[in-house]
Amino acid sequence: MPEEVLRQAADEMLDWHGSGMGVMEMSHRGPEFMQIHAEALLDLRELMQVPASHQILFLQGGGIGENAIVPLNLFGSKPRADFVVTGSWSQKSQKEALKYGAAHIAATGRTEAGFTHSPPKSEWQLSDDPAYVHLCTNETIDGVETFEIPDLGDIPLVADASSHILSRPMDIAKYGVLYGGAQKNIGMAGVTVVIVREDLLDRSMPICPSAFEWKTVAANNSMFNTPPTYAIYIAGLVFKWLKRQGGLEIIEARNVEKAKLLYDTIDASRFYINKVERRARSRMNVPFFLADETRNADFLAGAKARGLLQLKGHKSVGGMRASIYNAVPLEAVKALVEYMKEFEAKHA
Amino acid sequence: MPEEVLRQAADEMLDWHGSGMGVMEMSHRGPEFMQIHAEALLDLRELMQVPASHQILFLQGGGIGENAIVPLNLFGSKPRADFVVTGSWSQKSQKEALKYGAAHIAATGRTEAGFTHSPPKSEWQLSDDPAYVHLCTNETIDGVETFEIPDLGDIPLVADASSHILSRPMDIAKYGVLYGGAQKNIGMAGVTVVIVREDLLDRSMPICPSAFEWKTVAANNSMFNTPPTYAIYIAGLVFKWLKRQGGLEIIEARNVEKAKLLYDTIDASRFYINKVERRARSRMNVPFFLADETRNADFLAGAKARGLLQLKGHKSVGGMRASIYNAVPLEAVKALVEYMKEFEAKHA
Repeated sequence: MPEEVLRQAADEMLDWHGSGMGVMEMSHRGPEFMQIHAEALLDLRELMQVPASHQILFLQGGGIGENAIVPLNLFGSKPRADFVVTGSWSQKSQKEALKYGAAHIAATGRTEAGFTHSPPKSEWQLSDDPAYVHLCTNETIDGVETFEIPDLGDIPLVADASSHILSRPMDIAKYGVLYGGAQKNIGMAGVTVVIVREDLLDRSMPICPSAFEWKTVAANNSMFNTPPTYAIYIAGLVFKWLKRQGGLEIIEARNVEKAKLLYDTIDASRFYINKVERRARSRMNVPFFLADETRNADFLAGAKARGLLQLKGHKSVGGMRASIYNAVPLEAVKALVEYMKEFEAKHA
Repeated sequence: MPEEVLRQAADEMLDWHGSGMGVMEMSHRGPEFMQIHAEALLDLRELMQVPASHQILFLQGGGIGENAIVPLNLFGSKPRADFVVTGSWSQKSQKEALKYGAAHIAATGRTEAGFTHSPPKSEWQLSDDPAYVHLCTNETIDGVETFEIPDLGDIPLVADASSHILSRPMDIAKYGVLYGGAQKNIGMAGVTVVIVREDLLDRSMPICPSAFEWKTVAANNSMFNTPPTYAIYIAGLVFKWLKRQGGLEIIEARNVEKAKLLYDTIDASRFYINKVERRARSRMNVPFFLADETRNADFLAGAKARGLLQLKGHKSVGGMRASIYNAVPLEAVKALVEYMKEFEAKHA
């Protein structure tokens, strides 16, 4: 989280803008929170350049919640969807969708080395008339990001962008639905942003819970049930911070610089390995392996001694992983690269 | 919200207990948040005296989300439940459950004057072998609270206690499931407490979303998906505040005093009317009507001039409503009663 956002939240904790109450104490239907909510929506629409064809909803349940909420909202008339599986998260999405209908794997990025590819559209084997095609546009565990978004004509593309939303501009018009939990680049855990094309709001299954039915949520301006007001407020502060930085083009340039520094270091070395094809390398999550994995514990201990934390890869893939979300400064990546070079020089 | 809770949250925003990071920045699997989470669970268990037979889960979606989540978790083998309808919220619960099975209305507290009763068990017409019996133990809009909880033998009783949880001791052993959204007495909106008897964890429907399946959530200690970490932290601060106050007996005594003051004022007057039977009068939400409703606007304007806000009754019932949750001090109720007497003296 950007420090200035946290400072502002602390300053306003007991009294928001002279209202005499903190945001946590506001009624979600009162004029103060209505303003916070409206501004958050407007700022997000501006930042992501969300076209008028798409609504922005605030839900609860995160990306994993959406694994069920998406089919519950889109399987109404066509209970079959296609999945492009590029890593652990899209795999989970496909599995959960099986509860509600057919979930066809149209393509997989899995190779003998794990999930290392984002298959291009030419390799997708779509089923006949699917309700939608699902894609996780950034896979945190495997470090696979999808940059090329194909045009699927009438088939809605649904993207789980939880872990890289707001890291770069995205052409929202290409997506039927784009969603993201807040805990990576948006703010605090507890709110899920769902951007949905309006014509997709009438496709829910009768068993879709009202609180998670996009049509119902949209008709009530995300206030069908009490929204996670404080999480929306914090997200709004982050949106304003992103605007002050200059918007998503500037943020993208920073993220490109941070990622390049790390990947260049890995590529220039025989000591570190990243297995992901270059065109699909994530700018948010950089997994890498030591060629000699017996040195893993040493590497992590040395990193910890320098304050470089949370570098251990996910247990399902092993190795290392650097997560360099928006709020991670370039200096932190420089410090990591410095350490990696020194560790290599000492042990290679 | 208690002011000292807000002050502590503000103080710890950038640095929780010398960890160098704020709670919003913590990984939900890191040792710092694990401690916050574990303490919140322990404190709540102690405050509510939750027996070892029951698990405490933190979910998302609030009371309205649970309207679907409850049947999705309990309709596994017996797709029929009974509902005791004592107001607008239990009515909504019954309607939502129809999506997943049969939802039989076993009793209603509705009279010509609106929802004014909590029918005793002798009046419940239970169906044959229901999956559960649902009750909303405090109805905010209608001001109906249920104090007598019957023993239903093998039939699990499910209670929506969203709006009065932590306002008084409750005998958790009597409930199969007791749940509550956080925004009234627990803390900030965005987390739902679900207390569920362990033997009820194996009754979910196959279509239950994993993120909302109690069995899955319980098996993962409420961390199957990223939990609403900050909302859990704030709830934990409120639990510690309640313990510092002396626990729920003390809180109950305060709430009894506040409610008595208000009901006594209403009962002593022919100017104000409360329609709820005495044994079911809510201690949290006191709806009342002016005998002469043409004075409603005057009453509200005078109240506002004294800083007595949010007194307008819900649009579905009209009149007035004083919501006097845990955090509302006795002084505020005294100020309201003072104003009511003056207004009456002037206009009666």
